[in-house]
Amino acid sequence: MQVTEQLARFLATHRPEDVPERVRHEAKRSLVNFFATALGGCRNEAMEILVAALADCFGPPHATVIGRSERTDALTATFLNSVSANVLDFDDTHLRTVIHPTAPVAPGLFALAERRPISGAALLHAFVLGVEVECRVGNALSPGHYRRGWHITATCGVLGAAAAAGKLLRLDSGRMAWALGAAATQSSGLIENLGSMSKSVGVGNSARNGLAAALYAERGLSGPERPLEGPRALAAVMGEGEDLASVIDGLGDSWELMQNAYKPYPNGVVLHPVVDACLELRPQVGDVARIERVMVKGHPLLRERADRPNVTTGREAQVSLQHSVAVAFLYGAAGVKEYSDACVNDPAVLALRSKVSAEDDASIPADAAVVSLRTTSGDLLSAHIAHARGSIARPLSDRELEAKLRELAAYGASGIEAGRLIDSIWTLDKTDNSAAVMKIAAPA
Amino acid sequence: MQVTEQLARFLATHRPEDVPERVRHEAKRSLVNFFATALGGCRNEAMEILVAALADCFGPPHATVIGRSERTDALTATFLNSVSANVLDFDDTHLRTVIHPTAPVAPGLFALAERRPISGAALLHAFVLGVEVECRVGNALSPGHYRRGWHITATCGVLGAAAAAGKLLRLDSGRMAWALGAAATQSSGLIENLGSMSKSVGVGNSARNGLAAALYAERGLSGPERPLEGPRALAAVMGEGEDLASVIDGLGDSWELMQNAYKPYPNGVVLHPVVDACLELRPQVGDVARIERVMVKGHPLLRERADRPNVTTGREAQVSLQHSVAVAFLYGAAGVKEYSDACVNDPAVLALRSKVSAEDDASIPADAAVVSLRTTSGDLLSAHIAHARGSIARPLSDRELEAKLRELAAYGASGIEAGRLIDSIWTLDKTDNSAAVMKIAAPA
Repeated sequence: MQVTEQLARFLATHRPEDVPERVRHEAKRSLVNFFATALGGCRNEAMEILVAALADCFGPPHATVIGRSERTDALTATFLNSVSANVLDFDDTHLRTVIHPTAPVAPGLFALAERRPISGAALLHAFVLGVEVECRVGNALSPGHYRRGWHITATCGVLGAAAAAGKLLRLDSGRMAWALGAAATQSSGLIENLGSMSKSVGVGNSARNGLAAALYAERGLSGPERPLEGPRALAAVMGEGEDLASVIDGLGDSWELMQNAYKPYPNGVVLHPVVDACLELRPQVGDVARIERVMVKGHPLLRERADRPNVTTGREAQVSLQHSVAVAFLYGAAGVKEYSDACVNDPAVLALRSKVSAEDDASIPADAAVVSLRTTSGDLLSAHIAHARGSIARPLSDRELEAKLRELAAYGASGIEAGRLIDSIWTLDKTDNSAAVMKIAAPA
Repeated sequence: MQVTEQLARFLATHRPEDVPERVRHEAKRSLVNFFATALGGCRNEAMEILVAALADCFGPPHATVIGRSERTDALTATFLNSVSANVLDFDDTHLRTVIHPTAPVAPGLFALAERRPISGAALLHAFVLGVEVECRVGNALSPGHYRRGWHITATCGVLGAAAAAGKLLRLDSGRMAWALGAAATQSSGLIENLGSMSKSVGVGNSARNGLAAALYAERGLSGPERPLEGPRALAAVMGEGEDLASVIDGLGDSWELMQNAYKPYPNGVVLHPVVDACLELRPQVGDVARIERVMVKGHPLLRERADRPNVTTGREAQVSLQHSVAVAFLYGAAGVKEYSDACVNDPAVLALRSKVSAEDDASIPADAAVVSLRTTSGDLLSAHIAHARGSIARPLSDRELEAKLRELAAYGASGIEAGRLIDSIWTLDKTDNSAAVMKIAAPA
């Protein structure tokens, strides 16, 4: 079974008109969410450090850094835009693999579009194919790969980035296989680094190195014949004995992008139904001083991942049930501001979170939760969320994604005309010049 | 056992005067060999492709590309100089791990020296420490890591590069640990890619990304506490269950650089004693037309790795016993010219190599060989090499390393003043400005 060869041939020969309209629309939704989170993250501390450290090596100002005034070369801009899109953990999620699909794949395409004339339709097509590659390889290697300790967004993302960029560069199937080979040998990223700023190095590299792999292949840098399935290749070395045949099963018939989900809140996905329930209860509570106790019931994963009563940083609070409940009741919101270090150490938040407890109920699905609340006057209130906002069963609407972009642009990069940016993404398939989007995505 | 913490503290506090003189001299020998192979490789096809692909993203002309007229930013120059040093498979070898130690570690140091005032003594010290880190981690992970399919030069090289650059940047032990963390999450490189041009991507990245890791840590990019030994860290994910305690055992008492070997010929190390024997016999043979048959006896590894009678490219010929014997007799040499595609397809070579056969003798060590030859007039000649030139038991002399540099400079980059370059390396510890070496290493 020549997995790489068949995958490369599919990529090289696939036509834009063979992407169904609903998949093309989902691609645009992913891009709205991408620009939203990149605008929100573009002034994050890790981002500021990486910009400062790389500034001395910036190449020619060919490419936009989303939300910022710096311009740099295509590879560096690709790295930085991937970092800002992912740094808040607010980007999209392919739920089966926990891959964040867009941060590795999209940045290289927009950077290329600022160097070569590329239509919006071609860019969307390449994006769809890149996501397909990273998620299919991720599916094939799951769950062993992530369990071993590989940060699957980075390790599989680099393949998607190479495939997508290779498509824009119109690589033939032979060179597409070389691009996948140059990507495979750059696949890296450890779970150990999550929770520290160096998480961003793995994610940013996946985007940068995938683009580089395609640029190398375009010039003729040869690779191995079977970089995915060979005896010392990606699956053998970074997998746990899986067969890669599923990577090419039904290629072009199903689309992984349709399994992509967008977060309404920048916290762990298990917390989303909990926040939904608190926001539903909040108007009934009125004054939070009335809250005596909050009890949360959910799938055992909820406590396993998020039972953290004593967090001190915004980063930790993103996976704290107690903090998330407290801010939802106090502020009626669980956005990026509510996950700042300052908010985490706010005495009102500390007081309220100490009243929150949780228990397991294996009969409750992971995207559901029940929040019950006892008031000081003895009333008992309760809300049951069957499917969290942002889950596949209850996706964010296009309008909600737009609101997310507006909010994050205001938070991270106030110089942006959010409305124009949103319009340019929804009409991307109508333009001959996809780089126009990037002009709107940074301060004039 | 806090391996990262102890290693980082050792690196941050170690003093140049605690490096023994013989180790410092070995560091210079490694650098003579490094500039030799980089000058030889600087016009290689893979190198030309990578320069062309990256040119559009070149940063400011701060740093030298060895042997070439281009100048670029520190990170890109580091990548390219690592590629050229390793691309011919003619660079140094740490025999226990098969790591090529210098190509990942040295380039970042010279690139930094072109941006900040760095004395030769400081550079040599950082280089020694970087090699120590990559080889100690390599020792701890061997042999399982390479056997699984990891290209150990790239995967461990990035740690050495980060440690060395971090030392030059005077990182304290906390930031040194962060640098090692940013390096660990970038560790990559598959054996599958060896034999194709994309091998160079892994090696070049190890140098570039190690330097980047140190630059990120310098600015405060945080990393995990235990990037080497943690539960989802380097050893757990990329090892086969090894304990890393040996990484810190006797740190500073022994020096891995003393186990570094330099190749006299750009072919597989198992072929070195065979070439030695042929060159010894050659004067006795006179006209090669007199050769009826050549019989080679060696350790079983010799046939396993190099019994390849029908090769068609220079790259394959580097691991062909038959080709190597033929050129040694025909040309009295086994240098880079004798491993060109043209030479491999030379009818005289084809005729002679067909007369070569080999057999195993498990009693012969891997760095030894016996070559016997029967002439058309029935004479029997024989040569026994107990230790190959370039082995630890019979190292290349300083003069032989100088000759290697002169020969490779003439082959790859004729505009270089080889004598001045050699002098500048031997006197490196006397200069306040280690960047002066790089000025001589490229055409004026």
